[in-house]
This record gives sequence, structure tokens and C-alpha cells, in this order.
Amino acid sequence: MPELSDEEQIRALAEQWSRALEAKDIDAVLADYAHDVRVFDAVPPFESTGVEAFRRKWEGVLPYFPESFDSEHRDFQVVVGGDVAFAHGLHHFKTEDPTHPASQTWVRVTIGYRKIDGEWKAVHEHVSVPFDPMTGKAAFVRDLD
Amino acid sequence: MPELSDEEQIRALAEQWSRALEAKDIDAVLADYAHDVRVFDAVPPFESTGVEAFRRKWEGVLPYFPESFDSEHRDFQVVVGGDVAFAHGLHHFKTEDPTHPASQTWVRVTIGYRKIDGEWKAVHEHVSVPFDPMTGKAAFVRDLD
Repeated sequence: MPELSDEEQIRALAEQWSRALEAKDIDAVLADYAHDVRVFDAVPPFESTGVEAFRRKWEGVLPYFPESFDSEHRDFQVVVGGDVAFAHGLHHFKTEDPTHPASQTWVRVTIGYRKIDGEWKAVHEHVSVPFDPMTGKAAFVRDLD
Repeated sequence: MPELSDEEQIRALAEQWSRALEAKDIDAVLADYAHDVRVFDAVPPFESTGVEAFRRKWEGVLPYFPESFDSEHRDFQVVVGGDVAFAHGLHHFKTEDPTHPASQTWVRVTIGYRKIDGEWKAVHEHVSVPFDPMTGKAAFVRDLD
């Protein structure tokens, strides 16, 4: 089997992450984060450090997800240089009931990676939606074009 | 004069960007972005491509800033690998009047860079505040710590 390029390895991580979430397998979701990952998440806290914060988040959130859903990335671009890479794209959860809270918006995702002991690990993740400065409300986007 | 390391060059860009904004010098603000930079900004649109979107944003926003203000980064971390780098940190505008709209929150900033013809250029920028999922409102942070 031909070896995957660095870009292919990082795209594979994003796919594995999606399949892990769909299976609600939190250990698998967390597998590709560095232990000291710095996170700017879509919801508070403003910033956090460490993969355990992610564990608590998904443990808290996944029980409210429907039994089945799809995790989908779009326009996921990957930039690689040596042992450092970053990726940026859009993500959403597709649910059978389109009014389910888990699927109320697409989000923007940026991930920073380092290759550590030969494996790509996310050392930084930034997920967000914009806010409307006139109302102070999150500007959800349910449908992209 | 000793040559700056890649990390020092990127930190210098962030400082120059701050000084350019404080001077309301939009050409200087835009100098270090790639022409096709992909932006996930704190306010709509959800995403945009190209440095001209930034020009329109700053042209629209800067007239509402006070005559003088400080642009300040905090906890700005830089990761470099060959011709690719990314940085993540916190940013705010400090105004004499602390209730001025321009200084209502810190934001989280992630920037992705490529070295193009020997110069670091931002090819991706992601700026945001989180939102409170119970209210749908942007969760501003006026003071850190």
C-alpha cells in the first residue's frame, strides 16, 4: 500500500475524528490531540488548555445528540511545512430532524498540527461562528449555498 | 544586526500590524496578508477570501474607533516548520473610555502563514469570541484573569 502524504494523513485524521464522533467514541475523538492542546472553542470557556477539557465537553454534550447523525467537513484546506501544518474548513452535524439543536449551524474550524514522534497531533484548535455586532447574537448559518 | 529568526519575524509582523492599526494606516495593516487570504472573522460574513474584504472591513470600522487606542496581543504563541507557520493568541483594543464599543471584548486569534518569496504572509486568519449556547449571545470577555 502506498504511504500517505502528510496532507493525506491530516485529511484522514479529520475523517477518523468524524467517524469517532458519529460512534460517540470519545477516546477515539481525543486520540489525535496533543495532551496540552490549546483550544478556542465555539462555546465558553474563552480558552482552555489540555485534552481533558475536550473530554468533559464531549461527555457533557454527546448525550444531547440524536442517536445517529453525520459529521461533515467542507472546503477543508491543508497547508504542510516539514513537521508543522494547519488546516481550515467548515464543519456541521447533519441530523435527521433539521431543527435539532446539534445541527443549528455550520462552524468555522482551524486546526494547528505538529508531527510528534512521527504522528500528526493537533496542538491548537479554534472553532467558532461569527456574531452580529448590532445585536450581540451568534450569527448561525444553517445552509451553505 | 543579527538576522531575526522565523518566530521573531512573525512576532514582528504582529507588532507592525498593531502599530499600523493604531495609526489607522490601512495599507500597512494589509501589507502582510496574502492576496487570497481566507478569513473567518469575528463578525459576518461567515467566511471571505481575499485581502480586499479586509480593506472594506477596516475602512468601514476605523471611523468608529476613538482618535487614539492601543492594539494589544497576549499569550501569542508561534509554531514554525520550514515555510509554514501558525500563531494563536488573544487580542484587544484598549481605549481611554473603557465603555467604548471597540474595547468591549478580547478576541481569540489564529493566523496561518506561508513564507512566500522569502517573506511571511498570512494566508489564513480566524478571529472570534465564543457564544453562550443557552442564550445564543456572544460571550464577551472584557477582562482576562
